[in-house]
Amino acid sequence: MPYINIQITDEGVTKEQKQALIQGATQLMVDVLDKNPATTFVIIDEVNTDNWGIGYDQVTDLRQKATSS
Amino acid sequence: MPYINIQITDEGVTKEQKQALIQGATQLMVDVLDKNPATTFVIIDEVNTDNWGIGYDQVTDLRQKATSS
Amino acid sequence: MPYINIQITDEGVTKEQKQALIQGATQLMVDVLDKNPATTFVIIDEVNTDNWGIGYDQVTDLRQKATSS
Amino acid sequence: MPYINIQITDEGVTKEQKQALIQGATQLMVDVLDKNPATTFVIIDEVNTDNWGIGYDQVTDLRQKATSS
Amino acid sequence: MPYINIQITDEGVTKEQKQALIQGATQLMVDVLDKNPATTFVIIDEVNTDNWGIGYDQVTDLRQKATSS
Amino acid sequence: MPYINIQITDEGVTKEQKQALIQGATQLMVDVLDKNPATTFVIIDEVNTDNWGIGYDQVTDLRQKATSS
Repeated sequence: MPYINIQITDEGVTKEQKQALIQGATQLMVDVLDKNPATTFVIIDEVNTDNWGIGYDQVTDLRQKATSS
Repeated sequence: MPYINIQITDEGVTKEQKQALIQGATQLMVDVLDKNPATTFVIIDEVNTDNWGIGYDQVTDLRQKATSS
Repeated sequence: MPYINIQITDEGVTKEQKQALIQGATQLMVDVLDKNPATTFVIIDEVNTDNWGIGYDQVTDLRQKATSS
Repeated sequence: MPYINIQITDEGVTKEQKQALIQGATQLMVDVLDKNPATTFVIIDEVNTDNWGIGYDQVTDLRQKATSS
Repeated sequence: MPYINIQITDEGVTKEQKQALIQGATQLMVDVLDKNPATTFVIIDEVNTDNWGIGYDQVTDLRQKATSS
Repeated sequence: MPYINIQITDEGVTKEQKQALIQGATQLMVDVLDKNPATTFVIIDEVNTDNWGIGYDQVTDLRQKATSS
């Protein structure tokens, strides 16, 4: 009965990509730990790029620098 | 000073239901562990049904199957 | 299919108290939101009092002040 | 490679305040633990005041009581 | 720069199994979302079976029932 | 009433360092958001280096490579 929480930035993730994340994470629990998929939860949190920081910077600003450079 | 995080799907939970969750979870800490309610936090996360998976499937799809069957 | 995470300090919580937390939190989901208990998870995190701060202070120190006063 | 999750109520936090939280939390990891900022994540969750409870009450209601008193 | 948190019961998970979880979850982010593995974190929480509840019951008790039946 | 969760590897963090993390994180909430420290929680999770992955690798192995190189 694993619980997997995936936190990613909210940059246009599609319903199909979310489905692929859920299937892949669930299958990983089955393959590695022989867990029961019926009681495996996968929760995806999409985080605004203003609210995610890495290396002192907001991802919003990192994306702008990457685009303008 | 407990912290309780409740994660549920965002399927029309009302302000009154949220209040009932907060009161019930706080009271549980008082009754079972004699905690101080003044420093008991309850945080409710409402998760989009596309972002919640169980048994390989998105809850969005599980709800549609249940409705159409 | 709710997920409830309860974070408390690790101050001698018994197996029976944990069971009461699990039963109470699960029942709350049934009573308030009509959720299915079979897919309701309750996860209890016991946190060392050195690792929990409130009002700038470690709980370890708050407990010692309370005892010595 | 620390991960810091900051949960606050969604009461008009500006992009500049979020940047200050990210910078301050990252610097704290550098100063206290000599961590590498390049692999320090800061994630800010803004929580609706209906969804945050303290002392049995929703923050929404606590704010209204404070305003009307 | 995803963050993946995997919560499982602490029932003898080996270092090799943990490595397989980390590799699989990281690869999933690369395959589905084209994320950079160098800034993909995977954190595994092993939870005592007394502290994990499902369907009102502690996993400890569910395991004992399964063994004795 | 913020809640801050700091996740770090369990590599000999002292009680004094934890106190510095708690004080710094609490002060950050006061300085940036004018929050009340009396209802600011800081929770530190120390994670085994086998259980933390970055760039496909367990931190345990990254530390060994760094030492042996």
